[in-house]
Amino acid sequence: MSAQPGDPGQPDPSPELDRLYADFERNSMAPLWTQTNDLMPLAPRPSAVPFVWRWSELLDIARRAGDLVPVGRGGERRAIGLANPGLAPTAYATPTLWCAIQWLGAFETAPEHRHAQNAFRFVVEGEGVWTVVNGDPVRMSRGDLLLTPGWNFHGHHNDTDQPMAWIDGLDVPFAHDMDLGFFEFGSERVTDEASPHVSRSERLWAHPGLTPLSSQEAQVATPLGAYRWEHTDAALREQLALEDEGHPATVEQGHAAIKYTNPTTGGDVLPTMRCEFHRLRAGTRTATRREVGSSVWQVFAGSGAVVMDGERREVVTGDLFVLPSWTAWSLEASDELDLFRFSDAPIVERLQFQRTYLPDTDRLFPGSRG
Amino acid sequence: MSAQPGDPGQPDPSPELDRLYADFERNSMAPLWTQTNDLMPLAPRPSAVPFVWRWSELLDIARRAGDLVPVGRGGERRAIGLANPGLAPTAYATPTLWCAIQWLGAFETAPEHRHAQNAFRFVVEGEGVWTVVNGDPVRMSRGDLLLTPGWNFHGHHNDTDQPMAWIDGLDVPFAHDMDLGFFEFGSERVTDEASPHVSRSERLWAHPGLTPLSSQEAQVATPLGAYRWEHTDAALREQLALEDEGHPATVEQGHAAIKYTNPTTGGDVLPTMRCEFHRLRAGTRTATRREVGSSVWQVFAGSGAVVMDGERREVVTGDLFVLPSWTAWSLEASDELDLFRFSDAPIVERLQFQRTYLPDTDRLFPGSRG
Amino acid sequence: MSAQPGDPGQPDPSPELDRLYADFERNSMAPLWTQTNDLMPLAPRPSAVPFVWRWSELLDIARRAGDLVPVGRGGERRAIGLANPGLAPTAYATPTLWCAIQWLGAFETAPEHRHAQNAFRFVVEGEGVWTVVNGDPVRMSRGDLLLTPGWNFHGHHNDTDQPMAWIDGLDVPFAHDMDLGFFEFGSERVTDEASPHVSRSERLWAHPGLTPLSSQEAQVATPLGAYRWEHTDAALREQLALEDEGHPATVEQGHAAIKYTNPTTGGDVLPTMRCEFHRLRAGTRTATRREVGSSVWQVFAGSGAVVMDGERREVVTGDLFVLPSWTAWSLEASDELDLFRFSDAPIVERLQFQRTYLPDTDRLFPGSRG
Amino acid sequence: MSAQPGDPGQPDPSPELDRLYADFERNSMAPLWTQTNDLMPLAPRPSAVPFVWRWSELLDIARRAGDLVPVGRGGERRAIGLANPGLAPTAYATPTLWCAIQWLGAFETAPEHRHAQNAFRFVVEGEGVWTVVNGDPVRMSRGDLLLTPGWNFHGHHNDTDQPMAWIDGLDVPFAHDMDLGFFEFGSERVTDEASPHVSRSERLWAHPGLTPLSSQEAQVATPLGAYRWEHTDAALREQLALEDEGHPATVEQGHAAIKYTNPTTGGDVLPTMRCEFHRLRAGTRTATRREVGSSVWQVFAGSGAVVMDGERREVVTGDLFVLPSWTAWSLEASDELDLFRFSDAPIVERLQFQRTYLPDTDRLFPGSRG
Repeated sequence: MSAQPGDPGQPDPSPELDRLYADFERNSMAPLWTQTNDLMPLAPRPSAVPFVWRWSELLDIARRAGDLVPVGRGGERRAIGLANPGLAPTAYATPTLWCAIQWLGAFETAPEHRHAQNAFRFVVEGEGVWTVVNGDPVRMSRGDLLLTPGWNFHGHHNDTDQPMAWIDGLDVPFAHDMDLGFFEFGSERVTDEASPHVSRSERLWAHPGLTPLSSQEAQVATPLGAYRWEHTDAALREQLALEDEGHPATVEQGHAAIKYTNPTTGGDVLPTMRCEFHRLRAGTRTATRREVGSSVWQVFAGSGAVVMDGERREVVTGDLFVLPSWTAWSLEASDELDLFRFSDAPIVERLQFQRTYLPDTDRLFPGSRG
Repeated sequence: MSAQPGDPGQPDPSPELDRLYADFERNSMAPLWTQTNDLMPLAPRPSAVPFVWRWSELLDIARRAGDLVPVGRGGERRAIGLANPGLAPTAYATPTLWCAIQWLGAFETAPEHRHAQNAFRFVVEGEGVWTVVNGDPVRMSRGDLLLTPGWNFHGHHNDTDQPMAWIDGLDVPFAHDMDLGFFEFGSERVTDEASPHVSRSERLWAHPGLTPLSSQEAQVATPLGAYRWEHTDAALREQLALEDEGHPATVEQGHAAIKYTNPTTGGDVLPTMRCEFHRLRAGTRTATRREVGSSVWQVFAGSGAVVMDGERREVVTGDLFVLPSWTAWSLEASDELDLFRFSDAPIVERLQFQRTYLPDTDRLFPGSRG
Repeated sequence: MSAQPGDPGQPDPSPELDRLYADFERNSMAPLWTQTNDLMPLAPRPSAVPFVWRWSELLDIARRAGDLVPVGRGGERRAIGLANPGLAPTAYATPTLWCAIQWLGAFETAPEHRHAQNAFRFVVEGEGVWTVVNGDPVRMSRGDLLLTPGWNFHGHHNDTDQPMAWIDGLDVPFAHDMDLGFFEFGSERVTDEASPHVSRSERLWAHPGLTPLSSQEAQVATPLGAYRWEHTDAALREQLALEDEGHPATVEQGHAAIKYTNPTTGGDVLPTMRCEFHRLRAGTRTATRREVGSSVWQVFAGSGAVVMDGERREVVTGDLFVLPSWTAWSLEASDELDLFRFSDAPIVERLQFQRTYLPDTDRLFPGSRG
Repeated sequence: MSAQPGDPGQPDPSPELDRLYADFERNSMAPLWTQTNDLMPLAPRPSAVPFVWRWSELLDIARRAGDLVPVGRGGERRAIGLANPGLAPTAYATPTLWCAIQWLGAFETAPEHRHAQNAFRFVVEGEGVWTVVNGDPVRMSRGDLLLTPGWNFHGHHNDTDQPMAWIDGLDVPFAHDMDLGFFEFGSERVTDEASPHVSRSERLWAHPGLTPLSSQEAQVATPLGAYRWEHTDAALREQLALEDEGHPATVEQGHAAIKYTNPTTGGDVLPTMRCEFHRLRAGTRTATRREVGSSVWQVFAGSGAVVMDGERREVVTGDLFVLPSWTAWSLEASDELDLFRFSDAPIVERLQFQRTYLPDTDRLFPGSRG
């Protein structure tokens, strides 16, 4: 796809040109005119590819890792990343996002550490592990989103005799490639081995529209450590019920969705990652969209399909798929379909690159950018 | 307190000075030097006075108004304002805040209208009325805070055979004195006479940390129409429990408090008014504070006392009191004491006049202002 | 204008009603239904009136005050306020704004003090005084806007053998009525008696689009102490030239205008007051507007007329006039007309009461409020 | 640097482990435990290296490219990028920043196009070219910073019979690797071939602290197309003079610096790039700093040295050097040393990864991150 001799605007071959190009290289320089097409395409042309991972396979592999791979200081986490085939040899899901399945055996502990990278966990099945964030033990159960904003110490311990798996989402690729990360080891055991039903952060912050008067400053990441399934489920159910009653509530017909937010700002839970949950009524097909920025989805319940750049892939509970930037995508629900999503939308929006295109209706947002 | 002849910096009396002063008046002018002390005191010297209104008396009077005064178009609301004695002849509670007890008889309707002024209602006892905000019926029950941001149509209807009373809070004095208000009549009846247990706004917005993906913009006032007692109570209970367990959660020892917030911003529910709820353990005495800006408090449950500029007044459930700007205040709880508060703090803070002083420890916030 | 017995929605007279009203008063209560019309009119109905003060008269009176009234500690400033006839007995220009002519005789000093109230000075003619703001001497010359944000020490000294007059603008009425003000005495003499051509604040901040790397935080008020006439004049001249060349630059045809801004935020120079400068080509008549909030204007050069609520008043250099909230106003330029304006727009906008109406075209902004 | 068998926390080799690793690969998965050290180092470990490019060589090479390489549609720009040796085979200066020398021959035109990527030009010597941004011709002269925010059409034309060179800065690597870019071709010639001394954007916006009343909204990038040398020079000169007079003005002793800002926000000129200019007195050595994020510097005048991770490199006018993230750097001025800098600080700060460390005094900012 690079410019070739003879392309419009390209220089004619000559010995002088060869010498010039050699001097570029010798001086650590490189011409723009041979690479504009690659570097600055008409629209994003991601190396990352749309891809689906099967939960059944991930889970099986993670279980085997549970038998073979220790967890402890030095091998901090038994996490296996989704490695986008277009981004090999890295283990990145997208250029910004890391997504891994993590496995913790009966009574095991993943030691405490902290890093500038932001992290969360989402639980598609199972229970029994507590993640301890800055000394606050947070129960992990099906449908819960658990937050670990950058530079908070955290470890995990399995309080039961059963293994548990979940997914981790981090901005590791972004922080790595932009050279933003810091890391520090903490306690070998979690600093609080209690296993309370609700964390202290929830007791302080999980009251709708109510915030502690002792903590009035906006915070860069959410102070709420857990977003529980019961609330997410209720919010989505109400949106669909309101739609049934004729009131605006859903994103589009048959498509309910919530954004997890930082209660101190009303914005995203993390400076770099947006987390959402979507519910589609059986039979719904969403409008096809292209968006700037990438995302990772996990089917939480139900079955259906995702169409990515025209290719239709069936998905069931636990399956994960990746949408690179500007991929045309839509979702189809065979039965009621629940999906968790995380994306790098805060990066895109805070740096003012946002753009959305709906090809079916030829609508572009924001209008002023097009 | 005005400057007098002979005061330092004041001119000597003379016929020329008399003529000058007369010419000032004739030309609609006025000298600063005779009024600096009044106009620009060393610290706020409010005309409003600290004052207590007794709920038992308010309720009795409101009941009599219920018998004598119709409610309907033209007499839009059967509301009786707390008239600060220092602000006579106005019916202002403070220079910015209006607070009234409103009474609605069995099956009565207060017709719909809207105004630029922001409003809320707080219910210290009773139930049976629905306030309909932009067509969304919102149940009013004990301990609930109900919001009517500026320029939303609203009316109230009593769905039962029992009267009900509550308090209204508005920024009417501020909007009136600054000439900011608009008013428009709406439907004579409420536009939706249903009496659902939860409003549509709650179904969309009252999920902790979750916001509808269909509504991502920050809004100038909260989209959540009701903040329910069960959540407020739970938040306060948890703060005190966390304190018992040794974790930071309360404003000061024995003093739990929440701020009601706009879930789209994490900030105040209304552009001009802050709403809070406070709970003091039995036996707690809060640190004495002076703050810029005024507030109105209502005892919700329990008994105790408020000390205002050194004067101690006992208060019980339903009693209301007013703290003018810079009043030295503290609270004492005889038994567990619950209080609702609203203030003009957003006006003060958005315009950068905030200042707090703790006389016992001689601490001033923000430090840079003093 | 208050509700009368027999008005719709008003109670029928009766001895019981009389007793109720008496009990209201005895209990420091007041009914809403008798005052809604006054308190919450359909649109702002200011007590302040549109009014014009003549510079020739102000100046003459100020000169006489210069002879009769000392300036010094206790009589801090020889300032004579514009007292809006509708706001008597106060000396307020509008409910929020204070505007005074200040007179400083040859070699006189107005001692240093500071106050939470925000202030500026604008010079319509003359020179020779330095205002010393936090120790930084700022020259005052014709056409300059000089800033004294809240809680900065400031004094003035006349470095010449000629008197000088200028106007002061403050948010004194707002701070007084809302009980927000603090005041502290400083040095009897100004702390730096130098008379440099440019202040230190200008040397740091008056470079277009350039800010010191040592000072990167947003500041609540402008750090720039002086906005010089040469820059204002150039900016307006360029707007009109661009208009001539067919490019968008002016507010409306023939009407150039700038806003003085805080270089650390791009917003208003002061938290409570907006300062603007307007230039109308000879023959221009501006579209009639109604705006929420009040303003004070001073003709800087040229002659023309202001039409306020239908009444046309001719104005010449130095004349001041006041526009209360929601007054319909337009300007007419006989010859090229330059005007300085200050307003309480930041109060209105930060508290979300802004609304503008153009009666000739029946357009309302923002659309969503109407 | 990757984890090895036998490292702490690593699994023991076994046939089962080999099979597991093979299955990872087959399923597009990758374990975290073998790469944590690389992915999440204790502090940033950039691939990019500190590097110096010599202006004399760049200019010579660019001149030769001027002879051999056409400019026109398809070969949009005769720009030669600085290719960081640590980032080969890309032509990135850092992971986020592109920096190129661009050469435009006598009377040549670089055709118009636009892209989502943000761009600027900085002129170390020469003149004669106008860059036309959205139809507004902007003169390019020595010491000027010229802005082309994302999605503005722009082209360049040389109005003289002499070639001219300058540097371009863009966020091309960031936009490319994150898949954020869009590109659109425009006019083959510039849309306005005039060569005015000042652009229309300057006529509207380059007045210190004054903004057009017709344009009151905050804008995501600066509306000011040119920041002229005379203003930059004056601002720096004043900082040093103020320092001489004993007033705070400089970053550190002998080190003046300004940030180019967006006058509508007071923040950075572009959403992704910060531009600064630094002046060091002869003999000054700056404190050594490590910062998160990368930057490119160009010596504008004078001579001195940069010390990067302990290696000292002499630099003279025109030389460019790159500081990768967390590189320890300081500058030394032999004679008065002027430097232009641009960095990805807005990316780092908007996404909350900022951290600065001063090794000599062991100070870390912000304190809360460490």
